[in-house]
Amino acid sequence: MSTDEEVRLARAYLLRVAEPPAPALVAFVEKCGPAVAMERVRAGECPGKVRDETVARHALSLAEKDIAEARALGARLVIPEDEEWPAWPLHALSVAFGRGVRGAAPPLGLWVHGERRLDEAADRAVAIVGARAATGYGEHVAAEFGFGLAARDVPVFSGAAYGIDGAAHRGALASEGFTAAVLGCGLDAGYPAGHVSLLNRITDRGLVISEYPPGTPPGRHRFLVRNRLIAALTEGTVVVEAGGRSGARNTAGTAATIGKVVMAVPGPIGSNMSKGCHALIRDEHATLVTSVDDIIETVGELGAERPEPVRPRRRTDGLGPHAMRVHEALGPRSGKSAEHLAAESGVPLGRVRAVLPALEMEGLVERCDAGWRRAG
Amino acid sequence: MSTDEEVRLARAYLLRVAEPPAPALVAFVEKCGPAVAMERVRAGECPGKVRDETVARHALSLAEKDIAEARALGARLVIPEDEEWPAWPLHALSVAFGRGVRGAAPPLGLWVHGERRLDEAADRAVAIVGARAATGYGEHVAAEFGFGLAARDVPVFSGAAYGIDGAAHRGALASEGFTAAVLGCGLDAGYPAGHVSLLNRITDRGLVISEYPPGTPPGRHRFLVRNRLIAALTEGTVVVEAGGRSGARNTAGTAATIGKVVMAVPGPIGSNMSKGCHALIRDEHATLVTSVDDIIETVGELGAERPEPVRPRRRTDGLGPHAMRVHEALGPRSGKSAEHLAAESGVPLGRVRAVLPALEMEGLVERCDAGWRRAG
Repeated sequence: MSTDEEVRLARAYLLRVAEPPAPALVAFVEKCGPAVAMERVRAGECPGKVRDETVARHALSLAEKDIAEARALGARLVIPEDEEWPAWPLHALSVAFGRGVRGAAPPLGLWVHGERRLDEAADRAVAIVGARAATGYGEHVAAEFGFGLAARDVPVFSGAAYGIDGAAHRGALASEGFTAAVLGCGLDAGYPAGHVSLLNRITDRGLVISEYPPGTPPGRHRFLVRNRLIAALTEGTVVVEAGGRSGARNTAGTAATIGKVVMAVPGPIGSNMSKGCHALIRDEHATLVTSVDDIIETVGELGAERPEPVRPRRRTDGLGPHAMRVHEALGPRSGKSAEHLAAESGVPLGRVRAVLPALEMEGLVERCDAGWRRAG
Repeated sequence: MSTDEEVRLARAYLLRVAEPPAPALVAFVEKCGPAVAMERVRAGECPGKVRDETVARHALSLAEKDIAEARALGARLVIPEDEEWPAWPLHALSVAFGRGVRGAAPPLGLWVHGERRLDEAADRAVAIVGARAATGYGEHVAAEFGFGLAARDVPVFSGAAYGIDGAAHRGALASEGFTAAVLGCGLDAGYPAGHVSLLNRITDRGLVISEYPPGTPPGRHRFLVRNRLIAALTEGTVVVEAGGRSGARNTAGTAATIGKVVMAVPGPIGSNMSKGCHALIRDEHATLVTSVDDIIETVGELGAERPEPVRPRRRTDGLGPHAMRVHEALGPRSGKSAEHLAAESGVPLGRVRAVLPALEMEGLVERCDAGWRRAG
């Protein structure tokens, strides 16, 4: 098995072992890398908070099965080590998570169904979200905006729910543009039931995305956790209709927390379904938008200032557990022999001798008079 | 004739001699006081800019006739020297005018029809304005807001136009609360024709206000000039519906310029009559409001911080032309004899001797060893 596949399996394991957003586990993986994190979680050799998040499922070994099931669907697991990982959009989550916003933990990987590269899909995308119990007005607006944005090559993200979400996806599909649905359940959950054919159409022409392994049923908690991904994978979120308390306002709140643009559509003041939008605008949590031009102008203001994407991936994230341990045992200046490294890392000598040339090819180690040392 | 009546006549003359907002004349009156200003304008002895504003009408002597005509209607001329002058609300105009906003020149007086004191009417009042070509939605909202504000003892100001204005006045009248109409024509113009009975009802229960002398016909320019008074006499302006370019947006712009609160009501994004409101909110020129509670909260935020009213009236504004000249001839420290003052001011000695004790009673001069000097 290649190192790539080891890491993918590790992340598949980690995606199932804890219920997202699993902040302690995510921090642990950031610290140790996925392979080491998996080994330690599986062995119960991890900090208490990580154990709390993982204890119930740590003995499950479904990673290969999950990947096989996804493949059977035609889906794949995209991980931070992949070229198509949407590193820039998700960077906003990492920043907020680093500031201590536990709910902003970035995903450990994303199950993706559809042909387009995930990073391309999440490039300058816009989310259209809103109430399930939308009015005709709201659905009309969502469909118009979905159509207009997609027609102008702006990827349209939403949550595949009834009401506003569905109208936005349908509008984008009608324009033959791109749309992506981010789910709060496994890709194979067939939820919501009335949108199975819509989801199939989205898969055919866009992407369906989830951090939940195949077979995961939907749940209210999962929709809220999912909302952070809708906010993060896009540059801005448009709330088309929302009651006083709604998931759409939750998405908007997350978007604001992680520094994304929040927009809201006004409506008649007598409409309960516009109350949430009006409150967002009135409280200056959202910019009022009435058209696709407004949305592009609002998102564009920030997009124009966007610096070069920073890939937050560490050079060693792609390493398997043995290679990682060997790498950690290396010194930055003085060289060490293979025997010395085996003793320090606890990795068998034969494995150390196999790993070192591989690390050298990755540019992570270099040979010197005394043996091997870290490169760079 | 009493000094009061002299000043009132002077202001009646000045209100007719130039087309408001007449910034040069207003500044001249602020500098000289109304009586002196009148004399100089009438004589053509005034700065060039003042002459430009007044040359066409400076020979007209209609002040007494205007006051008599107003009285015949049951109306009166309220001037800055009156107790009921709304000095605090209009102070916002003076401040902006002092900053150089020529269109913000405060009125030289206001023709008022109705029983309530003008200063009480303009205490914590709210303006409701909007398009003449309003939709049913807009008229419904204007009537609801007019009703709700007046029922909570908030005076409702508007411009008596068709559409939003009329609906706001009618709503306020329906609640048996207070409403005031500010016109862009004389109180007797009977404009707009379809609102004559509405204006009569407003007069019976509220106030009808104009800076234009009796007989002045309406004009587009006058509506725009009038809008500054609607903005100034209230704490905040609510734009209920407005097209892309509209007088209501002009009122909102003036309100913002003079530091008043601007509010706007959202509506369906497809409605042309909500476009102006949405633009105001989107550009952060107005706060979105959806209810009477929202309006009171928005206006109240500022109202709560309101300092004690500062009456911008100068102590000498109430003086007749002779008393004013004598006062100007006085020194602040060293005393001057009556003969000296007569020589300096050009006022006959007998008149100087009559004026000085009157000024003393007003607390404006005091006796000293050398004669008389300014008090204070």
